[in-house]
Amino acid sequence: MASDVRGRLAIQPGDHVKLSDLPADATPGFDGKKSQAVREVADMGRELAGLQERLYAAASEGDRRRVVVVLQGMDTAGKGGTVKHVISHLNPAGCRIRAFKAPSEEEKRQHFLWRIDNGLPQAGEIGIFDRSHYEDVLVVRVHDLVPESVWSRRYKQINHWERMLADDGVTWIKVFLHISRGEQRKRLLRRLDRPDKHWKFSANDVRERALWPDYRTAYTTVLERCSTEAAPWYVVPADHKWYRNWAVSHLLLEHLRDLDPRYPPGTFDPKQARAALLRT
Amino acid sequence: MASDVRGRLAIQPGDHVKLSDLPADATPGFDGKKSQAVREVADMGRELAGLQERLYAAASEGDRRRVVVVLQGMDTAGKGGTVKHVISHLNPAGCRIRAFKAPSEEEKRQHFLWRIDNGLPQAGEIGIFDRSHYEDVLVVRVHDLVPESVWSRRYKQINHWERMLADDGVTWIKVFLHISRGEQRKRLLRRLDRPDKHWKFSANDVRERALWPDYRTAYTTVLERCSTEAAPWYVVPADHKWYRNWAVSHLLLEHLRDLDPRYPPGTFDPKQARAALLRT
Repeated sequence: MASDVRGRLAIQPGDHVKLSDLPADATPGFDGKKSQAVREVADMGRELAGLQERLYAAASEGDRRRVVVVLQGMDTAGKGGTVKHVISHLNPAGCRIRAFKAPSEEEKRQHFLWRIDNGLPQAGEIGIFDRSHYEDVLVVRVHDLVPESVWSRRYKQINHWERMLADDGVTWIKVFLHISRGEQRKRLLRRLDRPDKHWKFSANDVRERALWPDYRTAYTTVLERCSTEAAPWYVVPADHKWYRNWAVSHLLLEHLRDLDPRYPPGTFDPKQARAALLRT
Repeated sequence: MASDVRGRLAIQPGDHVKLSDLPADATPGFDGKKSQAVREVADMGRELAGLQERLYAAASEGDRRRVVVVLQGMDTAGKGGTVKHVISHLNPAGCRIRAFKAPSEEEKRQHFLWRIDNGLPQAGEIGIFDRSHYEDVLVVRVHDLVPESVWSRRYKQINHWERMLADDGVTWIKVFLHISRGEQRKRLLRRLDRPDKHWKFSANDVRERALWPDYRTAYTTVLERCSTEAAPWYVVPADHKWYRNWAVSHLLLEHLRDLDPRYPPGTFDPKQARAALLRT
């Protein structure tokens, strides 16, 4: 298994990002065949499940650590597919999965991070965000939903908030699923070909696709301004679904291995407990 | 695969329940070997995942249907294990899993169904409750946490509330995981033997175990008074973990097959959409 995929995919603070220079069909850190990647995802899944149980167990004795995986990307980039194929290896009871769609009227009356805060995982849990607070500098910026004077301040606000949470025990794994414009067209056309996929398609998808260059600009700003030491972005080439699953599994695995959570010792005397139990 | 496991495990309204007459190591509806049960759970998992996707898709066009699986049982009965081995076959993005522990101070200041209401799945989702509102007539009754005049009214309140939700599209699958007192002792002792299981053990487990007869009485009342047409209880013998997983998978499968959710037709003209897409 490759090591330090994290290092190869991370954007460093201060990096200049040019998405067109990053091929969406590349497979950094992996040079085998698809079938091997699929096998490795299953293997990593087993190791991930074990690490997750230890993370969860540690929280029972006060370990505050938790993980947030942020999934962002253009329509069809595979946010849902990543949850289905990567996160499904984990114990669902320890996952907190939230899909952030357009905010409700109630949510709009709060500051933009309020609803995200509400969806955060607890100590010991792994949170998975299908879209996130970054929509407030992506779709919001592209569609002028608030004035520039408002959204342009959000990058720093996000950095400060993510930093505060990192200080409190949150490990951020922010993943940009990078697909090419041609691959998006193929995927949208496939949805039209299959009646059982029609529910995933809306006429709006075509309108959003026309704004591709604007989204590219907005994403580039996000990657450049919000890749901090506490919470870097990872650019995962996602034209190949199997590579995407492999890379996200790897990112999660490398971070959890580093956290190295431990089963807490019991707060009781096992001998005494056994004696008490045998009396019942 | 067996059919109508549901009918064999359900408590009917008006049934007299005597748990001691129901062997906890029985395997109603299944007469094969453990290995066959394990294979069938995996097969059912694939069918469940397909049905779940259709349920989720249907909600995108206004189908309000959703499912709530309630898991109750004595300590070590396998509530967590059921989530891990049965629910893990589903797409985690469509599941809403809640573990209801002792209520917080904030929750205590609301009526007892308030926090459960807050945890309900949305249309298209499958909710899984590890413990539930039934704790308010179980642990609450056994430990006299509120006066009898209060808890004794709750059975009817629960029935009315579950009925209202059933009318609104909720399918209830209420599962009592039925283990024997001897099996619980074995499982608690095993937790003491394994340091990596110590975090699951607390001295309180022994004290609760001593109240076994009181819990039996409280559960019997629940099964008798809250098995309604809209929301019957299912008693799943749970001394064999493999049977427990098989039976819960079966219950879920039979209910979802009955719901028979359908992919909604698109709300657009595929030809026009294709033409628009090819222009981008």
